[in-house]
Amino acid sequence: MEQITVLGAGSWGTALAIVLADNGHHVKLWGHRQELINEINETRKNEKYLPGIELPSRIHAISDLKMSLNGARTVVLAVPTKAIREVLQQIAQSITEAITIVHVSKGIEPDTLLRISEIVEIEMPKHLLKDVVVLSGPSHAEEVSQRHITTVTSSSKNLHAAEYIQDLFMNQHFRVYTNPDIIGVEIGGSLKNIIALAAGITDGLGYGDNAKAALITRGLAEIARLGSKMGGNPLTFSGLTGIGDLIVTCTSVHSRNWRAGNLLGKGQKLEEVLDNMGMVVEGVRTTKAAYQLAQKYNVKMPITEALYDVLFNGQSPKIAVDALMARVKTHEMEDLVNVMDNR
Amino acid sequence: MEQITVLGAGSWGTALAIVLADNGHHVKLWGHRQELINEINETRKNEKYLPGIELPSRIHAISDLKMSLNGARTVVLAVPTKAIREVLQQIAQSITEAITIVHVSKGIEPDTLLRISEIVEIEMPKHLLKDVVVLSGPSHAEEVSQRHITTVTSSSKNLHAAEYIQDLFMNQHFRVYTNPDIIGVEIGGSLKNIIALAAGITDGLGYGDNAKAALITRGLAEIARLGSKMGGNPLTFSGLTGIGDLIVTCTSVHSRNWRAGNLLGKGQKLEEVLDNMGMVVEGVRTTKAAYQLAQKYNVKMPITEALYDVLFNGQSPKIAVDALMARVKTHEMEDLVNVMDNR
Repeated sequence: MEQITVLGAGSWGTALAIVLADNGHHVKLWGHRQELINEINETRKNEKYLPGIELPSRIHAISDLKMSLNGARTVVLAVPTKAIREVLQQIAQSITEAITIVHVSKGIEPDTLLRISEIVEIEMPKHLLKDVVVLSGPSHAEEVSQRHITTVTSSSKNLHAAEYIQDLFMNQHFRVYTNPDIIGVEIGGSLKNIIALAAGITDGLGYGDNAKAALITRGLAEIARLGSKMGGNPLTFSGLTGIGDLIVTCTSVHSRNWRAGNLLGKGQKLEEVLDNMGMVVEGVRTTKAAYQLAQKYNVKMPITEALYDVLFNGQSPKIAVDALMARVKTHEMEDLVNVMDNR
Repeated sequence: MEQITVLGAGSWGTALAIVLADNGHHVKLWGHRQELINEINETRKNEKYLPGIELPSRIHAISDLKMSLNGARTVVLAVPTKAIREVLQQIAQSITEAITIVHVSKGIEPDTLLRISEIVEIEMPKHLLKDVVVLSGPSHAEEVSQRHITTVTSSSKNLHAAEYIQDLFMNQHFRVYTNPDIIGVEIGGSLKNIIALAAGITDGLGYGDNAKAALITRGLAEIARLGSKMGGNPLTFSGLTGIGDLIVTCTSVHSRNWRAGNLLGKGQKLEEVLDNMGMVVEGVRTTKAAYQLAQKYNVKMPITEALYDVLFNGQSPKIAVDALMARVKTHEMEDLVNVMDNR
């Protein structure tokens, strides 16, 4: 049994801490808000992020980052993407021996257009970083915390590292598979939030399941087009971290990106939506990054572009969605064949 | 404007008749139950299959098959798969000039293992059959009848025929794309009903969205593995008739295959379920055919095999699903790569 540190006491960090604790590991769960840390240690609950769930006694919450890292060989990074650089810098200042970093955040950094694993490699001094692994897949935190069956993918440039993380997390409810294609895994996980926002908008506008299925299908093609051009394996987008995660995010009531889109579709302004949610909506930031990536790689991404106009240029959701659906394109294979040509 | 005959006055036949009537065509809608035919002509409603929907005046219901075919160059075949041979034989006896047959049923014939378009070619004398086209995609009849945006694929060996049917059906709400891969389109449309039944079972058992997303993802891989070995284009399974139709069937409350699975998951016996539904559940028959296809083509189809055991060998749904989820398979790409190797 290991001692493992989970950075980020939101819903996903806390759910993963539960999985690790269930497997017999001792988990330090770091969060920066002292009030939340006290709540977790005193009540064994994290009511805001995982209401009603009793946290195992092997989880110790802690608000001092340096202390939380003491003795950990494996660190799970579960903070919002925009906080990642700052947290990595603090990790680098706090440790003396190399660690394996497992990141579980889904996003692309706007402007630099870096994936999270690339940011980890940039920010961490080489002698302090053993490996970077990404854990991703169709996995609502609420269900993981309730021990519902969940499948995820562990991916790293170093297969042994991916398998090591697989062993730490794998149990009867939480099934972990490995995939060597870290680019595809990170791109699929990030970009699905864009399609989830768009699916929320169509639902908010009152469109039906047929339209949403078409949107998800085209969304997958759009993700695979970009992702394969960036070096991902086209097959990864047909797997758990591609279509699997896309489905769960677009069709589940738990998804905060879908919920944000739904409010936009019902007529709320972006600022109102973000205020009302009170949680990070990664898809908004990712839409900006993906829009920039589409230009950089010269890939057509009509859904991303339409959503970008809604989020950042004040376009009406209804006009944007109707234009998307009425796009002139009579041969279905055109879009799909491009994915393979990009290999 | 054309005169078109739709054979089958169930929900899908009636919804497609509405689309054609909206486009200005004159539609004869054939059904064998005189009571239903009278209801449609007298009340402009088909309450059992499309409750609350007013049928356009350009639709004329008719119970005499031969009369319904009088003057039609295009015939839409919307009958349950097990009735198709009999209806085709009646068509052949009723017409004297070649027609284009558009089939919209989703299934594979058990034992012969033929796709519907193959059955059409076998049963129709050559001089009476101009072309066979399949129309398929994520399209719940209820939503089509409410003019919600829907996208489908028109596929035929003869691209001109596929485009001709595209023109007949295409309108602002009903978007039609073409795809030359009729094998992939028919296999995807048929086999998704198996996965929908399985998804209904997991939902009925109380498993969550994470498990369902995993099931759909693996289900798609299983369909693509078999379909590409049968000659379908692997890309088709990533399109509207593959993943698109799979999503809508597995996640929508309208899906009768999902509903049947849901009742099985809640503990009802297959006979009870079919009695309670009162509609054809194509997935049951397709499971048998797909099980036979998996053996014929030597393709691993674990979900199909598990469902076959539940439906026909009295296996407990819970034991079957748990065994599926716990399958030993640590590298995600194994399943996916097989699809491409089969090309």
